[in-house]
Amino acid sequence: MTKKAIGVFDSGLGGLTILKELHRVLPHENLIYFGDTANVPYGSKSKQTVTRFSLDIARFLETQGIKMLVIACNTASALALTELRKQCQIPVLGVIEPGAQKAVQTTRNGRIAVLGTEATVKSRAYPKAILKRNARLHVVQQACPLFVPLVEESWTNTPAARLIAKTYLASVRQSKADTVILGCTHYPVLKPVLASLLGKRIHLVDSAEVLAQAAKHFLQQHKQLEQTGRGKLTVYASDDPVRFKRMASCLLADKISTVHLKKLNA
Amino acid sequence: MTKKAIGVFDSGLGGLTILKELHRVLPHENLIYFGDTANVPYGSKSKQTVTRFSLDIARFLETQGIKMLVIACNTASALALTELRKQCQIPVLGVIEPGAQKAVQTTRNGRIAVLGTEATVKSRAYPKAILKRNARLHVVQQACPLFVPLVEESWTNTPAARLIAKTYLASVRQSKADTVILGCTHYPVLKPVLASLLGKRIHLVDSAEVLAQAAKHFLQQHKQLEQTGRGKLTVYASDDPVRFKRMASCLLADKISTVHLKKLNA
Repeated sequence: MTKKAIGVFDSGLGGLTILKELHRVLPHENLIYFGDTANVPYGSKSKQTVTRFSLDIARFLETQGIKMLVIACNTASALALTELRKQCQIPVLGVIEPGAQKAVQTTRNGRIAVLGTEATVKSRAYPKAILKRNARLHVVQQACPLFVPLVEESWTNTPAARLIAKTYLASVRQSKADTVILGCTHYPVLKPVLASLLGKRIHLVDSAEVLAQAAKHFLQQHKQLEQTGRGKLTVYASDDPVRFKRMASCLLADKISTVHLKKLNA
Repeated sequence: MTKKAIGVFDSGLGGLTILKELHRVLPHENLIYFGDTANVPYGSKSKQTVTRFSLDIARFLETQGIKMLVIACNTASALALTELRKQCQIPVLGVIEPGAQKAVQTTRNGRIAVLGTEATVKSRAYPKAILKRNARLHVVQQACPLFVPLVEESWTNTPAARLIAKTYLASVRQSKADTVILGCTHYPVLKPVLASLLGKRIHLVDSAEVLAQAAKHFLQQHKQLEQTGRGKLTVYASDDPVRFKRMASCLLADKISTVHLKKLNA
């Protein structure tokens, strides 16, 4: 069982921030990443459609013999986790629960802000997960639909990114939150801009770190943790593997050697 | 034959600028619009994937008994027109040829700039269509990947839109082009910002107007033009018809009464 890989998927590139952290925390595990670049983005799409895309990917990854599925996409975690757990034979880890838990542990003043896609915000998945842990906390949400295209276009360190971020963060500053969840796997790439606008006192919760720890904890508990050998990294994209590899190399410090094309429903 | 509708499709909302113009120029024609909101955007995707999406839509529209197919999307016109013409039983009109023709007629100094998505620019469909008409013209291209999300998020009249447009237009200004093709159906929504940055002397070519005239011309020539009755408008979207209707109502002066959900490959 322990020789099997961990499957990881995202709507596109964003989940690579999680892949990188999983690889750091679980260096002996084989990881298979699927970026759904034919259907990216998920954040403006409906629950029904995002669930359909997610199930297609999960089915493909299951055929690769994975021991665990990690949803490295906040929108898919918010909209499709329940259905994926119902239909998959293996454990499925989403990114919302670990992020919410970390935010609850971190806040000092009881005020948490969530930045996310339109779909994640609309689902109220983060407020629900936070308030389930502590009903007295105060949660505000802000949809940031332009952040994903900014990251996908590598415009993260531009005056335009700063101006757009400033607009979105107005409500966060007003809320007096001391803890801000980066509720989309693309957003950590914007950390420098966000941190400089919010100031040092505000804690940014990056789900990549928390999720990787949660995955490790789960594997330990279930005695499925690989202890030796160097983990292999396999990457699939549903469209244009060449473009994906080029952009992924910008996002990741390590270069990905090959990206395989895998069309879904073709 | 003349009672049949004209099928119109786009990756999402952008093509509604063309639908509106078709409805104005051809008020007696029934129009069926398909917005592929489950797969939007097309502009960053490969030829193979965009062609696959386009063929699925064309097949569905053909089952609705259309007499002509209008590709109201520059990316799909640039990447999938040849394949659509091969596989469809009806005439297919793209948006590139009419736009190129108009630009060639318009330029006085022989310098034309094309603004488009990454995929449209990469295809070189506009330069090819322009240079075929007059090989002595000078054509520059600029990909503007953030324009579509700006329009889809209704951020068209913001300082961020202005800043992003200014960055993209630097190369256009440098090229001394007197004619600029808005080579994506989303871009006409940004006309006020673009016109104010480029100045009054520069002519913006909006494919909607030219394409509608081309469609009318074709129907006249083939004696398929409807002369009486009020044309009916039917709208399909591949995801979230409620969201589509809300956003479409912002883009169009007329309200769309109903948007039908039609999933492809589901």
